[in-house]
Amino acid sequence: MTKKELVENIKRKKSFLCIGLDSDINKIPAHLLQSEDPVFEFNKQIIDATREYCVSYKPNTAFYETQGAKGWISLEKTIGYLNKTCPDIFTIADAKRGDIGNTSTMYAQAFLEKLNFDSVTVAPYMGEDSVKPFLEFQNKWAIVLALTSNKGAHDFQTIMINAEMENQNFLYQEVIEKSMQWGTSQNMMYVVGATRAEMLSDIRSIIPDHFLLVPGVGAQGGSLADVAKYGMNKECGLLVNSSRGIIFASSGNDFADKAREEAQKLQTEMQVLLENYL
Amino acid sequence: MTKKELVENIKRKKSFLCIGLDSDINKIPAHLLQSEDPVFEFNKQIIDATREYCVSYKPNTAFYETQGAKGWISLEKTIGYLNKTCPDIFTIADAKRGDIGNTSTMYAQAFLEKLNFDSVTVAPYMGEDSVKPFLEFQNKWAIVLALTSNKGAHDFQTIMINAEMENQNFLYQEVIEKSMQWGTSQNMMYVVGATRAEMLSDIRSIIPDHFLLVPGVGAQGGSLADVAKYGMNKECGLLVNSSRGIIFASSGNDFADKAREEAQKLQTEMQVLLENYL
Repeated sequence: MTKKELVENIKRKKSFLCIGLDSDINKIPAHLLQSEDPVFEFNKQIIDATREYCVSYKPNTAFYETQGAKGWISLEKTIGYLNKTCPDIFTIADAKRGDIGNTSTMYAQAFLEKLNFDSVTVAPYMGEDSVKPFLEFQNKWAIVLALTSNKGAHDFQTIMINAEMENQNFLYQEVIEKSMQWGTSQNMMYVVGATRAEMLSDIRSIIPDHFLLVPGVGAQGGSLADVAKYGMNKECGLLVNSSRGIIFASSGNDFADKAREEAQKLQTEMQVLLENYL
Repeated sequence: MTKKELVENIKRKKSFLCIGLDSDINKIPAHLLQSEDPVFEFNKQIIDATREYCVSYKPNTAFYETQGAKGWISLEKTIGYLNKTCPDIFTIADAKRGDIGNTSTMYAQAFLEKLNFDSVTVAPYMGEDSVKPFLEFQNKWAIVLALTSNKGAHDFQTIMINAEMENQNFLYQEVIEKSMQWGTSQNMMYVVGATRAEMLSDIRSIIPDHFLLVPGVGAQGGSLADVAKYGMNKECGLLVNSSRGIIFASSGNDFADKAREEAQKLQTEMQVLLENYL
């Protein structure tokens, strides 16, 4: 998907919601466990119930790998279903991969060609040759971890570099400034946690045009209004993710209806924010 | 596997060789492509030919994921074969995973429980809660990326922190110093590339007792003698990896024999180094 198409979808659907398919087999409704592929059946019903309120889905590979090859089959079926039934959805493999060049090429092929996701999340620690292979596929994206929403983000990402000097920077700023040269705002996005919304202003001053994938709204405590206030640009420029708050809103037979309600609530909030800021 | 067992295996086999099963479907001998599972068939023959000369095998997940669920089946069969036929082998899932706490727990379960690897490589960028879940399994290990062997290692890992101050550090040193507090030398190792052998001395001064997983010997240009000189400790403390140089030594019918020859060559060099330094 191109950036232009993504922006058009956001405007048409009045939503910048990404739904995280962290489809933990231990949390999906009990009545689905009888089906042949419970995780796929769960995802299918969640997708059917929520697709009109979101512009993106983001399966996190950890929740599939924990089921071994069977989990990868669920993942394959899920992305196949999305690509077949929702061509206007931006798909994200939340895989946080990254390795030396020739190995990153394999990961890029796995997610962007074989599974045919629009994008994949990438860890930056190994530098340029670990990220660039993800940028070599037309209309596909690398989403680089910059400032994550977890407690451990403070261990390394917010280390101050050159503290006593004029060019002082947090490590996550250094990651953005260096990596933004490897691609463009047409094939790179950044992960920036909602729990650090005030830092979005600084990030916007470095990358005014890039899309940001923002986890951490809801369960992790970030505020949607703050994210829009500090992070939105003239094309919206945001994909805000919610996982557990939507997909596990109910563990009963009504899980899909409750997921729809939660997704619609967020979409309604987002519609107001889009009208205010765009 | 415990550290004690690993050290005993190294002394008994006179080897600290790890063989990387980067079993690229595009590079395995043509005659194997007829078999039901070419990648597993390749791995099985490589393992049978080389196991007496090494103490560890390291499948890199990228080369399996690029085949989708089918690749994960090859990976499951490979680790199953290793666990069944080579109980004295230290197995490494070279997966470079890392995510927020509850998600890293899923990855840890996937590799250390479901697939039953002894260890998994972990990317440190997301900090403590992304690494700790891998440390909660008895006799299992997290192998944290510190200083990798690729060109991109210079982008962030060798950034100088506090350049003007007394406590100046490279980022990779900061990663080691902080993360070593999350576990012990009984459940944590570090990845340190052979292409930076002289830096091994500095690393040894921080972590004298931890095992180091050293890629980059051979194809990537690092010297085994230098790695031993700067990195070996009284328990050896090294696992030196070779992938392509062994498994793709020949692309003909003799691939397993040639792999054995290459593995034996390295083992012979390692035997001398062990006698010199231990």
